[in-house]
Amino acid sequence: MESPTVSDQSQPLPSWNEGGAKSAILDFVTRVTKQGGADFVPPAERIATFDNDGTICCEQPLQTQFFFLFDRVKELSANNPTLGERQPFKAVLEHDYNTLFGLGKQALFELVFATHAGMTDEDFHQIARGWLATARHPKFGRLFKECVYRPQLELLEYLRENGFKTYIVSASGIDFMRAFADEVYGVPREQVIGSSAKLRYDVTGSRVSLTKLAELNSFDDREAKPLNIGLHIGRRPVLVFGNSDGDLPMMRYAKSGRGPRLALLLHHDDAEREAAYDREFRLSPLAEALDKAEDYGLTLVSMKRDWRAVF
Amino acid sequence: MESPTVSDQSQPLPSWNEGGAKSAILDFVTRVTKQGGADFVPPAERIATFDNDGTICCEQPLQTQFFFLFDRVKELSANNPTLGERQPFKAVLEHDYNTLFGLGKQALFELVFATHAGMTDEDFHQIARGWLATARHPKFGRLFKECVYRPQLELLEYLRENGFKTYIVSASGIDFMRAFADEVYGVPREQVIGSSAKLRYDVTGSRVSLTKLAELNSFDDREAKPLNIGLHIGRRPVLVFGNSDGDLPMMRYAKSGRGPRLALLLHHDDAEREAAYDREFRLSPLAEALDKAEDYGLTLVSMKRDWRAVF
Repeated sequence: MESPTVSDQSQPLPSWNEGGAKSAILDFVTRVTKQGGADFVPPAERIATFDNDGTICCEQPLQTQFFFLFDRVKELSANNPTLGERQPFKAVLEHDYNTLFGLGKQALFELVFATHAGMTDEDFHQIARGWLATARHPKFGRLFKECVYRPQLELLEYLRENGFKTYIVSASGIDFMRAFADEVYGVPREQVIGSSAKLRYDVTGSRVSLTKLAELNSFDDREAKPLNIGLHIGRRPVLVFGNSDGDLPMMRYAKSGRGPRLALLLHHDDAEREAAYDREFRLSPLAEALDKAEDYGLTLVSMKRDWRAVF
Repeated sequence: MESPTVSDQSQPLPSWNEGGAKSAILDFVTRVTKQGGADFVPPAERIATFDNDGTICCEQPLQTQFFFLFDRVKELSANNPTLGERQPFKAVLEHDYNTLFGLGKQALFELVFATHAGMTDEDFHQIARGWLATARHPKFGRLFKECVYRPQLELLEYLRENGFKTYIVSASGIDFMRAFADEVYGVPREQVIGSSAKLRYDVTGSRVSLTKLAELNSFDDREAKPLNIGLHIGRRPVLVFGNSDGDLPMMRYAKSGRGPRLALLLHHDDAEREAAYDREFRLSPLAEALDKAEDYGLTLVSMKRDWRAVF
């Protein structure tokens, strides 16, 4: 026996270091897929839900969708020069994020609706794909769609190989995530659940389309995550992965089902390779889930300790 | 060459008679799955949506869920004898369906909420499964879950064999259909879209559950069908199957997408083997879709002519 010093690509999860988190995952998947075993879970029940921002992709200094939104505001203001005279658009154009986030949730929704509504879902999809094809992360310099954690892509794939259906359940916009989830995560559009606007049925000649409206349908955070899982999936997940208190209700929902369950919580403690943050992160803090991880039966994943590679 | 007189089980769709409808289906599936062909559709886009009542299962004299609902009202009134003194419960207990349906949509919602709300989605699932295990159709004498059209089960299976993802999109209750869709249709719960109530996130001790509320979330009929497809799937279906004007918006939505599309409309014209009805059916009439089938590019399926077997 020799201890491996380089990752063995023939084994599952090569970008995960040996340790408690990786063992917990491998052990769980082995148990639930063992036909005839006490913890066997039939394939139809193997639902895994992952948060997106901060869980599968980088959310520092801001979630990807904000950069998209800011670029869209710049485009809109080119055609409408007076837009930048009023908030929240002024703050965006002046890169004054302290003012912007001080304006509160309603101001953020106003930005989203100004840039995401009044077009069909299909037109929005093309706009988002176009942006994602070239937009780069300000710190890492790579495309946003490449600011994705390699260990998590391996985990998604490993779960699918073991008969799991993998879902994204995130507070980011459902249509925005559907523009890259298939290509980047291998998760088809219909397995993406997110915040959504109401849609309108429009007929123009013989052409039917769905128009995105400036009205919230669901803000898919905290309790709304399990509620939307109920609506879209109709089953408790057996495995969940999150990184903030916004994911805690979906973790507790999964954990309190009967039978084997695994709830994983990613802790960003790696300032060198990515970022170190938790309680103080403005938009999506991690505090209660960290303090009560043991009470809630969460398995803590340390980016620094448990991941051999990040991107 | 000999013309087949008995169905050849080794060929697709053995319960379909040779003719225009069967040819249209076989031709469509052949074209969209032909790699390199002009009409090739990548597997990720092969979304097929089927209405439920009257399209895959019998809806005469009433949709299955009404029988469930009536039996539930009887159970409730056993514990609450004054319930039967007021409408709409009185009409149900007296089997006075003319009065019942004369009370309007709101009265029907009241019945649904009285019998479907105030419990978790998981408890409801068990109640519905228990009922479905023994409840029998009043005319055909077989279990309701056996009052399902064999040609449609074959079609669902044939589509899945050809890389389609098959969905149910129906005005019936999402949780009710999820109690049998997997077992009876081979359609997993997460591919069932239907009318839904709002849910509430509840915590009791360490147990999290979702409670069905007496408040409508979505009545999944007519324009709501494509709107809910937008929310749940995020793509236009390439194939749709319906049987009433309630399915027309989802058919037009599918048909007006780019590339090959097939919209099939079942006409119940077989009084001998099942039922003959269209314009006069109270809850789910077929009129506009029949009159304008050609304008809308719908492929008409005659139960009498096109189906070798019904159940």
